[in-house]
Formats: sequence, structure tokens, C-alpha cells
Amino acid sequence: MQISLAELAGHLGAELRGDANLTITGVSTLKDADSGEVAFLANETYRKYLQETSAGAVIVRPEDAEGLTCAAIVTPNPYLAFARTTQLFDNRPKTSDGIHPSAQVAASATVGDECRIGANAVIGENVVLGNRCEIGAGTVIGDHSRLGDDCIMYANVTVYHDVRMGDRVRIHSGTVIGADGFGFAPDKGRWEKIMQLGGVQIGNDVEIGANSCVDRGALGDTLIGDNVIIDNLVQVAHNVELGDGTAMASQAGVAGSTKLGKHCVMAGNAGVAGHLELCDGVFVGPKSVISKSISEPGGYATGTAQMPMNEWRKAATRFRQLDSMARRIQQLEKQLKEQGKD
Amino acid sequence: MQISLAELAGHLGAELRGDANLTITGVSTLKDADSGEVAFLANETYRKYLQETSAGAVIVRPEDAEGLTCAAIVTPNPYLAFARTTQLFDNRPKTSDGIHPSAQVAASATVGDECRIGANAVIGENVVLGNRCEIGAGTVIGDHSRLGDDCIMYANVTVYHDVRMGDRVRIHSGTVIGADGFGFAPDKGRWEKIMQLGGVQIGNDVEIGANSCVDRGALGDTLIGDNVIIDNLVQVAHNVELGDGTAMASQAGVAGSTKLGKHCVMAGNAGVAGHLELCDGVFVGPKSVISKSISEPGGYATGTAQMPMNEWRKAATRFRQLDSMARRIQQLEKQLKEQGKD
Amino acid sequence: MQISLAELAGHLGAELRGDANLTITGVSTLKDADSGEVAFLANETYRKYLQETSAGAVIVRPEDAEGLTCAAIVTPNPYLAFARTTQLFDNRPKTSDGIHPSAQVAASATVGDECRIGANAVIGENVVLGNRCEIGAGTVIGDHSRLGDDCIMYANVTVYHDVRMGDRVRIHSGTVIGADGFGFAPDKGRWEKIMQLGGVQIGNDVEIGANSCVDRGALGDTLIGDNVIIDNLVQVAHNVELGDGTAMASQAGVAGSTKLGKHCVMAGNAGVAGHLELCDGVFVGPKSVISKSISEPGGYATGTAQMPMNEWRKAATRFRQLDSMARRIQQLEKQLKEQGKD
Repeated sequence: MQISLAELAGHLGAELRGDANLTITGVSTLKDADSGEVAFLANETYRKYLQETSAGAVIVRPEDAEGLTCAAIVTPNPYLAFARTTQLFDNRPKTSDGIHPSAQVAASATVGDECRIGANAVIGENVVLGNRCEIGAGTVIGDHSRLGDDCIMYANVTVYHDVRMGDRVRIHSGTVIGADGFGFAPDKGRWEKIMQLGGVQIGNDVEIGANSCVDRGALGDTLIGDNVIIDNLVQVAHNVELGDGTAMASQAGVAGSTKLGKHCVMAGNAGVAGHLELCDGVFVGPKSVISKSISEPGGYATGTAQMPMNEWRKAATRFRQLDSMARRIQQLEKQLKEQGKD
Repeated sequence: MQISLAELAGHLGAELRGDANLTITGVSTLKDADSGEVAFLANETYRKYLQETSAGAVIVRPEDAEGLTCAAIVTPNPYLAFARTTQLFDNRPKTSDGIHPSAQVAASATVGDECRIGANAVIGENVVLGNRCEIGAGTVIGDHSRLGDDCIMYANVTVYHDVRMGDRVRIHSGTVIGADGFGFAPDKGRWEKIMQLGGVQIGNDVEIGANSCVDRGALGDTLIGDNVIIDNLVQVAHNVELGDGTAMASQAGVAGSTKLGKHCVMAGNAGVAGHLELCDGVFVGPKSVISKSISEPGGYATGTAQMPMNEWRKAATRFRQLDSMARRIQQLEKQLKEQGKD
Repeated sequence: MQISLAELAGHLGAELRGDANLTITGVSTLKDADSGEVAFLANETYRKYLQETSAGAVIVRPEDAEGLTCAAIVTPNPYLAFARTTQLFDNRPKTSDGIHPSAQVAASATVGDECRIGANAVIGENVVLGNRCEIGAGTVIGDHSRLGDDCIMYANVTVYHDVRMGDRVRIHSGTVIGADGFGFAPDKGRWEKIMQLGGVQIGNDVEIGANSCVDRGALGDTLIGDNVIIDNLVQVAHNVELGDGTAMASQAGVAGSTKLGKHCVMAGNAGVAGHLELCDGVFVGPKSVISKSISEPGGYATGTAQMPMNEWRKAATRFRQLDSMARRIQQLEKQLKEQGKD
């Protein structure tokens, strides 16, 4: 892949300052780029590398485009322009051509045009794959599930039965969609299984990372909206609803029947308890636990801030005395107030 | 599947009030049920839907059975009756008939009657499968492992060698049983591997969710009691013992050699440190960390409660001053006490 | 496997006190060992079993070698000697002889001498496997990836394309190496995918547990140093660097572009935010969150300490009042100081 700076700027809808004929062969960081590569400035942490970069061109905001030693691609949103540039240079090898002879595709399955199905993949009864889907090696698609067009299931993904996905859904290896929700009724000290009779519905333009879980509904479906993005090792329990554009970072989790609104963000290892409702635009901080519904957009957090271990031990000990400390402050206030009366 | 209300009530051992001949074709929530479906009231959150439900019948406690607009199935434990109703309506497609031609079953393995083994499953040397087991597509059972009767391993499960399971064990996709425990001896700045020579024993009526891990013992076995239920993404380290009826919610973890008693419950992402002992009936709160053994049943927790981010920041800053705050309270008390002496 | 005590002591470079001809057939704990087995004392918790053990021999420090009722293998580091003893008694069945007929190995792949490739494993285009590698059943190695000598990939591991590993790397089942990092640029309420163009480099003598994730770099590689050890369900995000000898316990996570120095230890479910730098020798406590870079070795923690639930609720309520409590203490101090002036 190579592209001239003029073509790249044109593709990005950005202004070009510098040699329009320069050939770009890759994308890199300000620190590591060479003269045939394009770099970008989106995070202030890396501004220090802007003047000393060896990049052939940099993607920058207008206010950063002055005094550069290389060509500039000028745009109000360099990070977005960078994302689109990476798409031009995508180097992922595609899943094997056509249907690999070792794949097991049920006779009742419908496979769209130009699909690629990898070695040892298993496509169940009555499955429907849209056009141009890629099903990685060892991936299993359960009976009656349906994928839209242009979906990519990487290797060793597991999709249970009765899962429905829209178009352009990407699911990474090890992820499991549609396993049973964790539902059991207590019966005199024993757990009685509640069969999970619902399914999973996933919208368009969704990406789910590796080794994540989206459970099927107990009754009715678990719902993942359009353009939801989910990282690795994330738990989405049965009958959860995730609104459009919501993002869950690695190791985050949402318990059963909870609804997140649109454009919510859960930071790494954040958790939300079951049967709650979070409005649109809620941000949950890293490793924070939400145990009550939220009706005001904005950030929410739990936990404490990083301390050296020996200081932390003292503070943690005092935390256990907090109620007593609060009562002693009240007592002191009362004593002083009474003194004042004297 | 369809069943008359009379048959359903009979199956549940519950009292029927209403049309005994009504045909029930499914189970649903109070909110979503239609006139051919049975719904239930077990969680107070959903009481508001009881009067307006379109369900053909509802499963309720005696005190909720008055004044309903539909038939009632009356039982002291509606949630349990609901669980048993879902079992009647189970719609899971079974793993392929018999042994799929692409499955790799070692000649030395013993496969019980009426087992189903899916496409590309791998059954190792000397494995023993009881009767009526289902082994999903792509699942691997390691050498010398033994499963009892009626076990279900969903697709892409991995069971290492020397794992023993009782009857009616269900393990969901992506879960790994018997991987090496995390054991290394430090040697002048290097980690020396401790081979994990033990195995895993799992009792009867156990369910383990998706993408969980139960490690093999270093010496001796990791032990999972009867009727233990484990959710997704859960870590059970080497030589852990989980007592009968214990439950671990998603993303919970127990570190090496720790013993949990019977009927313990770990909430989502709760953790227990290694080499501890928890008595029967301990509940560990969401995302809480247990670092000392527990000999009294009841609930335990760590962490703080949800706050808007800007208020949380202030409190978190003050947490770092807690030890100093406690000393200042002491100082104030001392000063006031000395004033009192004057 | 059996070995005389003399041979075992010789192998360990340790002093033998007792019957040199005693035959040892296994290794066990002090509590469970029988007269043909060797046990060890490394953790003070188990000292109580030293006098009553039925072991044929025990591995102990010189100061613990007196007055024993069995033979002693005396060494300054019993835990290390134990580790080496377990290696002698390793009982893991090896992956099938040679290349299993059902494995799919690309014609362009290079397979070293004495490799074992299990049933239904998939080896992609241009993959290079060093000598004596074991590739478990159902494991998928993506195009262009390279493994050094003596690597063990257990069953159902997924390695994406362009991953490079040194020698003696062990990766347990369900783990995913090289999935896309979680990179998206916001664009007017939509997430635009940043293609992850980098790869993963893993050093020598690395072990990674089950169901963990090491993402590929966005630009440039994610780097795992030599002798790094990683437990189950661990997240290593894109462009993370882990220094030599660093250890991550189960459910720990490191966010994107963060660098950990050498010999760091992350306890269970500890987390580090993105774009940070931790120096060598940092220990992060269980379930603690690091949100700022660290330049001093030592322990760091967040969170609070275990409390009974009802006491915890009071303390958690007071935590929300902490800022107000601090201000009231200041006010009290001021009042008392003013009194003093009178």
C-alpha cells in the first residue's frame, strides 16, 4: 500500500501543506515514524515529539500546523483522520478463500456471497450468513443464528443458537455470545436451574473484543445497540440492554436486566449491579461499582486513590473507624457550642 | 411445546385458580406475556405490571392471588415454580446426533450410551464419558478425564487431563478446566515453574458459565462441591475448595488454596485472597476483597459507595488524609479535656 | 517415575540427611505425603505439619533440619527445590505424536523438528514453529506468526497474525494473543475504528495462563519481556510493555500504552490505567487501581479493608461525608485556636 500525500489529504477531506507528491507507505507515531510515514498529534502527552519527528507528514489541528519541519495534513480532528488513515493501511490477512474444505457447514445453512469460512469452523442448522462474512478457524455458529452482511468472527469465537446480528459486526477470538444467563432459583439449600429461553440481538457496526461474554436472555433477548464497542474480558449478563454508541472497556461488567442508555462509557473493570437503569451519557470510573440507578448524565465513581502501601494501611484502618470519627466530631462541635453558651 | 394450565399446575404441585383447560405455549414476563403465556411475580420491582399483564396465567404467592384478571398458579415459591416451568419449555437445540464424523475420539476412550459429540470435538486417550453426555463442537477433553452421566460441555470448552466430574455437570463455552495453577518459585530474580501435578474434581449438579477458569491443583486436586454454580469469567485457582451449594457471580475470583464453606455467595467481581478459610454461609459483596479468614456467617464488604465524580474526587483526596484527620480529632479531644480541667 | 533420595538431593544440589537409598515416587504436601513421597516446608502456615508428616523425606532450610522423624533434604531455598522436584515428576500427557492427520497446516508454514501438532489445530500461512513445539488440539496460529523452540500452546489457544514468541513460551487454553487493541476515534457520537496495525512480541521463558488476552499494538508492537509470568483472565492492552520478570496475577489488567518495569508484581485483579510508566520493582495490591505513574519501587494500593456488611454500610456512608468532616475538623481547630487567643 502506498498513497501520495495529495491523495491521503483528499481522502481525509483535510488541507495539505507541503509536498503533494510525497509517497506515504505507512502510519506511525511521532516518535517512531520515518520519512515515508505519516504520524499524528492527538494526545498532548506526545506533543514533545512534534518538533523532532522524522515523519514525512503529520496530521495536526490548524493551531499546531505552524513551524513544522515536515508536511502537514490539517484537520480539526486529527484522531479521526488517523483512524481513517489506519483503515487505508489495514494489513490483516483475510480468512481463507471461500469455504475451507475442513469447515463443517450444515446443509440447511444459508451462506451469502463472497463469504470466507476458515478451517474447522462449524456452521449450525438453519444459520444465515449475510454477504462477505468472515468466519475464522475453529469458530462455531449455533443453530438458527443469523449474521448480517460484512460480519467478521475471528478464530475460535462461539455463537450459541438464536443469536441475531446486524451488519458489520466484528467479534474477536474466545468471545462467547448467547451462553446461558446465570439464573437459578433457591430451593431449600439447592439451586434449581432457570432455563434461559431468550436470545441475543446485536445491532449494526458493533465490535466485541476477545474473551468477552454476552449471555442470552432468560425470557426475551439481551440487546446490544448499534455502534456499541466492547473490549476484552467484558461481562454482559442476561437481558442487559446497551444503548447505541455505548462503550465498555476491558474487564467491565453489567449484571442482569440492567439498561444502559446511549453513549455511556464504562472504564476498565467498572461494574453495574442488576435491575438498574442508567440514563444516556453516564461515565463510570475505573473499577467503580454502580449500585443505584442514575438519571443524571456525568461521571460516577467509587473507591479510593493510589497510595504507598504503608500509608494506605493506615488510611484503611481509619476507614473502619469512620463512623466513630464522625460521631466524635459531632461531640466536639456540641461541646464547643455549649462552651460558647457559657 | 404446549401444556394445559391444569397439567402445569399439577407438574408444579401448585393450586390452580382459573380455566384448567387453557393452553399455555410459553413463559414470559408480566410485562411482555401474551394470553397464551404464563408469567410470574417473584421480584417486587415488577409488581406494578401484575394488574396490567396480558398473560394467560400468573404464578404468584397466595397473598398476591386475589383480584387478578387472569388465571393464577398459587405457590409459596413462585420463583422456583418459574424455574421448573422454564425447564418444560427448554428450547436448546441438542448437539448433533451421535458422534459427528469430524469428531476425533481416541480409540482408548469409553463413550457411554446415547452420547452426542459435536463437529471437530476432540476426546483424548482413556477418557470416560458417562451416558447421555453432550460434547459441543470444538470442545477438547484431555487424556484420562472422566465425566459422569448427563454432562453437557457446550462448544469450545477445554478440559485438561485428569479432571473428574460427577453427573449433570454443565460447562459453557470458552471455559477451561484444569489449566496449570499459577505457581512459580523465585530464584534470584527469575521465576522457576512449579509443575502442577494435581487434578480437578467437580461434584454433581454443577454449572459453570462461559470463559471461566478452574485450575488444576499443584499437589492434590482443586475441589468443586455438589451443586456449586459459577458464572462467566470467574477464576478458581489451584487447590481451592468450594463447598456444596456455593455460588460465584461473574468476574469473581478465589486465589490458591483457599477454602469456601457451603452455601457461600460471592457477588460480581468479588475476590478472596489465597490460603484463607471461609465458613459456611458467607456472602461477599460486589467487588469486595477478602484478605482474612472468616469464621462467622454473614455479609462482608470493602470499597465505597457510588458518588458523582467531582464529589468522589474530594472524598478520595480526604481518604488520603484520614490518618491525619483521626489524629487531629484526638488532639482536639485532648485540648477540650484539658480546658475542662482548668 | 522414581528416584533415590541421593539422586534427588544431587539433582537439587542439596545436602542429604538420612537414607540415601530411599526410593521417592512422588511429591506431596507435609499433610498428605506418604512414606514414598517427598514433602517440603516453605510457608510458615504449614509448619504445624512438619513433626507429624508421614513423608519419606522433607525439603527444609538448615534451621528446620533438626529433630525430624524422616530424611531431610537441606537447602537454603526449599520452595525452589520443590519447584525443581515437581519438574522431575511432571505427569502432563504430551500433545499427540507428530502432526495429527486432522490438523490443518498451511503448505507455506515451516515446522521445526520433533513438533507435535494436535487434532484440528490450524497453522496459518508462513507460520514458523521452532523445534519441539507442541500445538494443542483446536489451537489456531495466525498467518506469519513465529514461535521459537520448545513452545507449548495448549488446546484452543488463539494466536493472531504477526505475533513473535521467543523460546520456551507456554500459553494455556482459551488465551488470545494479538486480537485488536480497543482503539476507536469518536466522530460526532459515533466510534470510528482504528485498525490495529502492530503486532505482539513475547520474550523467552514466558508463561501465560488460561483465557487471558494480549492485544496487538495499534502502531508498533505490544511487548512482553523475558520470564514474564501471567495468570488467567488477565488483560494486556495494546502497546503495553511488560519488563523482564514481571508477574500479573489472575484478573489483573494493564491499559493501553502503559509500561511496567522489570520485576513488577500485580496482585489479583489489580489494574493500571493507560499511558503510564511504572518503574522496576513496583507491587500493586489486590484489586488496586494505579492512575498515576510511579517512580519509586515498593507497594501501592487502593480500596478499603474487609468489614462485616452492616459496619461497612456505615463507613461507606461516612466516606461520602469525608470532605465535610475534614472541613469541620478545620473549623473546630480554628475555634479552639481563637479561644486560646482570648
